Formats: sequence, C-alpha cells, structure tokens
Amino acid sequence: MKIARYRVDRKTAYGVVEGDEVVEIRGSAFARFRKTHLRTPLEGVRLLPFSDAPQIWCPGDNFPGPRAQRRGRSTHNRDDESYHPEPWQKATNALTGPGDPIIIPKDSSGDVHFEGSAVAVIGRTCRRVSPAQAQKFILGYTCGNDVSDRTWERHDRSLWRAKGSDSFAPVGPWVETGIEPQEIEIFVRVNGKRAQHIKAGDMGFSFAEIVSYISQQVTLRPGDLVFSGTAGGTSVLHPGDVVEVEIPGVGILSNPVVAEFDSSK
Amino acid sequence: MKIARYRVDRKTAYGVVEGDEVVEIRGSAFARFRKTHLRTPLEGVRLLPFSDAPQIWCPGDNFPGPRAQRRGRSTHNRDDESYHPEPWQKATNALTGPGDPIIIPKDSSGDVHFEGSAVAVIGRTCRRVSPAQAQKFILGYTCGNDVSDRTWERHDRSLWRAKGSDSFAPVGPWVETGIEPQEIEIFVRVNGKRAQHIKAGDMGFSFAEIVSYISQQVTLRPGDLVFSGTAGGTSVLHPGDVVEVEIPGVGILSNPVVAEFDSSK
Repeated sequence: MKIARYRVDRKTAYGVVEGDEVVEIRGSAFARFRKTHLRTPLEGVRLLPFSDAPQIWCPGDNFPGPRAQRRGRSTHNRDDESYHPEPWQKATNALTGPGDPIIIPKDSSGDVHFEGSAVAVIGRTCRRVSPAQAQKFILGYTCGNDVSDRTWERHDRSLWRAKGSDSFAPVGPWVETGIEPQEIEIFVRVNGKRAQHIKAGDMGFSFAEIVSYISQQVTLRPGDLVFSGTAGGTSVLHPGDVVEVEIPGVGILSNPVVAEFDSSK
Repeated sequence: MKIARYRVDRKTAYGVVEGDEVVEIRGSAFARFRKTHLRTPLEGVRLLPFSDAPQIWCPGDNFPGPRAQRRGRSTHNRDDESYHPEPWQKATNALTGPGDPIIIPKDSSGDVHFEGSAVAVIGRTCRRVSPAQAQKFILGYTCGNDVSDRTWERHDRSLWRAKGSDSFAPVGPWVETGIEPQEIEIFVRVNGKRAQHIKAGDMGFSFAEIVSYISQQVTLRPGDLVFSGTAGGTSVLHPGDVVEVEIPGVGILSNPVVAEFDSSK
C-alpha cells in the first residue's frame, strides 16, 4: 500500500494512492485509519514530505567499495568490534518534497552531488529494539536523495551544511508499506540518463540493523527517517538538471536543480 | 519577561511567570499574545522544554582555552578565514525538561560530563540574516546542559550518541526575553558545589554571530535552540548527583542524575 501526505484545498491530508488518484484517510497514517470517499487525482495535489519535523538518520559509509575504503573503512567485517553503522544526522530543515527544487546555495563552490538512497520511515516509537524486532517499527520505504556539497564535506568539522543546507534532503513521493527491504533497488537518473544503480541487499547494515543500533541510545519516533546510504559514483548537479531517484515498486522522486538567487550579483 | 511552557490539568500551555505563579497566555508565545486570568502556582505545573521538536544547534569550541587548543583551535583570530563557528547538531530526542532525570545509558562507560551553557531560543523564522539583524530573531535565553559522554565523543565519527542520547539535552526552566546576551553569566553546581562559571562575554562568537552564520545555509524556525558552548573544566556525573545550571536573571535548571535500569544484570 502507498500512503502519501499532500496538500489539497488549503488542507494537509494523508491518503492512500490508488492508480492516479489519492484517497483521503481518517485516523493516523502511522496506526489505524480508514479510507474516506474523498478522491483526488494525483495531479491535483501537492505531495509533501511524510512528516513535518522528523529526525533524519544516516549510516556512515554503508556499502563496501572505494568510498568506504577512502574513509578508512576497508572491511565490512562483522567480527570487528569497531564495525557499527556510525550514524549521523541530516538536518531537518533540509527536508523537501517531490518536485521541489534542490537549491545550490549561492556561496557553495558548486561541487554539489546527488546520492541516491532508500529511506525507511519509522511507524512506531521505539527504543532498545533488537534487529529482529526493528522491522515491526518501520512503516515502509520511500526514495531519498542525500544531496551533498563535497567542498563543505571536506572542510567543515561537521556535516551541518554539507548535507544539511535547505533543500538538500528530497524525500518521497510516498511511503510503500508492502515492499521487502532487502529486495529494494535504487536507480538514479540525471536528465534521464542512468547515474546510479544500488541494491539494498548490498547494504553493510540492513535497515533493521541500523534502526536497532540507533534505538539503543535514541528514541525513534513515528515519521523519523533512516537513509540507506549510497553506493557507487556520484557526480555534480548543475542548475537546470532534473534528478530522479526511482525504487521500482515504490515510485519516482524527481527534483529539478536550481541556483539560489544571488542578489549581490 | 519570563515565558514558560508547561503541563497542567492534562493540557500543555504557555504562560508568563510572575513571582511563584504562571499566568496562562492566549495567542502565540513567539508572536502576539495576551495574558488570561488563569493563574497556577509554579509548584502545581510540570515545566516543559519550550518547544516540541526544535533543531538544537551548537558551536564548536566557542571559548578560548585549553579545550579549543586540544582540538587544534589554538587561536580565536577573526582574521583567519577558517575561523567560523563550526556548528553541529545535538539530537532532538535528547531534549528534556527542568527536573527531569539525566539518564546514564547502561552501555555507557560512565564518563558522562555536564557542560553548562546558555541557550538562545529562536523567535521568528530566519534565513540569511546578518549578525546585526540576528538579535531580532532571538526570542530570549534560557539555561542548558550539553551532557556529553566523553568515551563516545572520542570513539565515534559523529556526536550522535556522545551528545544526542535520550535525556542529554536538559533545557529550561523558561525563556527570559529581557536579558542582554553579552551580560549573561552561567554558574554550574553539582550537589550544591560550584563546578563552572562562564561569562557569555567570553564567547568566541556571540549568539547573534552564530545565528547569522547558521542562517546562511539553514532556515531557523521558532523554537529552534542555539547553545553558547561551554568553557572551563567539566567533570563526571554520577547517579544520585543533582546538577544545576543557573543564569542569574533567568533562573535555575536543575536535573537529577540516574542510571538507566539494566534488566540484564
């Protein structure tokens, strides 16, 4: 089932996507709800991020390969005690919805990359859950783009603006509750041309393992987001580009890239 | 004026603190409001963090001294281009209120320290404001404790649990709107014994400068919090301790320290 959050007729609603329509629900998208008779064509609504002020958690380099090696993470060896997901937070202000622009800040060097990702959406409050239990606390999955300014990533001590600048966290278009996480595949296209192909089965830590690990110290709440991490090459986004993250069975997250208006020029 | 957020009679309210009472307000604590006739003795309410899901921003080592030197930040030289506030985020789940316990996680090494701090509360949405403008977007100031697990701080790549474990961000007791930030002094006491004395006038970057800097890439929203950073020695908190952060003219934030219940022992 696909559950969307959207804006229609000056109200914010949750609904179930059926074909090219969305059916508004009553109740909680995170718990019990029933469908109403209010149907709206998808093209008549503005899709929104699934919750307003989630915390956004990401693992450190979560796929084996050159990226992990560069960061001194040469093995994904579960016998190594220091091998854990190394979570970090992507700033909430960065959250943006399907179709909304990714804005290159006017004071960026311009070295801003896409990073295709799958995103787990927490459905129920959890603390100190085991990997085996964690799956029950995940509502479903959606597409995400961990937009990253490589220059700021290298030079700052934290990722606050490298990965947390406004608009650097596109997520959507909706949450699919019926997909097996290990079967997720992620395709990124820039201007229609394939740029990444990632298999969630290759994740060093599964979503359940990441959720379990974070929950040892952090209470995760409904709507909180957990990114998969990315794999393989990324490249620079230019104003005018359109970047799509597709998970077959879920949907397509499409965002145009624009330059921030610079009034000083 | 002191504005508090509190729980009384199964409702959450904002109110103005007058003597030992709080007077409930109608309207927005962040914009226009008027006082009602509903007065409650402070001892009859449960004080809450000032907002529910703020982002919590902190500067890197923001006071000259040995701490900054250890981190390779030997000068606070404004002519040095790399000298900027180095913001990072403290996780929102860590937020806790006055009187609530600081919980030492059962899997912590126990090397958990207090860090007394003043905290600016954002009053109005701001983006790309100058230091001169920033003051207008700050509603007021409160006390904060940037509780930190030094072992996790050394060993993890991010501060996610070192400074973001549940209960590691006590803030309160309320927001004072009438204090001059550069005149703020912070006193920390553990079990009544003085442990820190910090002058906001010694901050490497003022609150206005930090807010301005963060706002270049991040939209700050009403209720978001900006910590001052701490100065001088900190020490280990033990279960049974009571740690107080006092800002004269604002109030006292007092929290007991407890050990997390460990069902495995």
